Amino acid sequence: MFERNLLLVISGPSGAGKGTICKALVDKHPESMQCSLSATSREVRPGEIPDKTYYYIGKEKFLSKIEKDQFLEYAEVYGNYYGTLKDEVQRLFSLKADVILEIEMQGALQIREKSKEAILIFIMPPSFKELRARLLRRKRDCEEDIQNRLDKVASELKYIKDYDYIVVNDKLEDAVSKIESIIVAEKCRMDEKTLDIETFIKDI
Amino acid sequence: MFERNLLLVISGPSGAGKGTICKALVDKHPESMQCSLSATSREVRPGEIPDKTYYYIGKEKFLSKIEKDQFLEYAEVYGNYYGTLKDEVQRLFSLKADVILEIEMQGALQIREKSKEAILIFIMPPSFKELRARLLRRKRDCEEDIQNRLDKVASELKYIKDYDYIVVNDKLEDAVSKIESIIVAEKCRMDEKTLDIETFIKDI
Repeated sequence: MFERNLLLVISGPSGAGKGTICKALVDKHPESMQCSLSATSREVRPGEIPDKTYYYIGKEKFLSKIEKDQFLEYAEVYGNYYGTLKDEVQRLFSLKADVILEIEMQGALQIREKSKEAILIFIMPPSFKELRARLLRRKRDCEEDIQNRLDKVASELKYIKDYDYIVVNDKLEDAVSKIESIIVAEKCRMDEKTLDIETFIKDI
Repeated sequence: MFERNLLLVISGPSGAGKGTICKALVDKHPESMQCSLSATSREVRPGEIPDKTYYYIGKEKFLSKIEKDQFLEYAEVYGNYYGTLKDEVQRLFSLKADVILEIEMQGALQIREKSKEAILIFIMPPSFKELRARLLRRKRDCEEDIQNRLDKVASELKYIKDYDYIVVNDKLEDAVSKIESIIVAEKCRMDEKTLDIETFIKDI
């Protein structure tokens, strides 16, 4: 009774821990949660696996799919395109699962414009200092890239008000548990339940 | 960071299990949750304890307090008045706790009009059949009273759309756990957090 599948958009600055949180959620709930795989225009990087890390479709195909309105959202980040294909999300919903998108803020805001149903969760690092430390620790980017990322955070934060929830990622388990609570709560929300209430009233 | 105390309004038809749920919540979280005690105009009934079951203030005093706008909400139910004193809620908030009001729908809707901050949770019995069975089982009311209560449910359900959440009380532990999730989720909601975000941005 009253169940509906959710579209969860997990977003926030790089280094906030979006990826780790999404992986933990899907690992804990393999039946009921599915993570949407993004498509990208860029090349495969060492350590990445096609159709597992991303769908690598090349720039030409990416642009053609934009043209055909086949993306739920897409964004250009440091010269490369990343996006969520509508097909992919439909496929995951057909599995009767909650669908998680781990995406950039640009894309999250596109989804906000299109859908009031989507649940936008902003993953917040505990502090700017901690964010810088995390980016340095993971050694994935050169210093210039890190500075670019940090500058971007400041400009992105002004869009935070378009989100439904903020989850501070201080401890991974706590952040995951808060998102689990958000999912339970959203399934109890009134909005979507009119039909079932009419059934209950009829029963009287 | 980002914490605020909540005003939770727990409402729904009699027999839905509101009282049991509220008691279970406060027993589980004696530090962080407080249940507001209502005032009533009616006499003490056998088994009830003054200042524990209700504040018994008599009809004259009750009406005078309505006059002085000292109630957050009040309702007349089967000829008796019941209400939440503003003083009582302020006292509980000063303990830095989330405050629970277990009240009638009339009162809940008064609070909805006054405050968008309050979180209205409707406790729903799993079915009308089960509701009738519960009312009969608890042997608190005569048959005529039970029929009155059941008739009231039908008329009350049309106001359900003013609530934020519906929690079906099929199993007590599940209903309690859903409300705990709602509390966690509400504390992650964006609305109230502008100030803290400005602090974070300053930190950059």
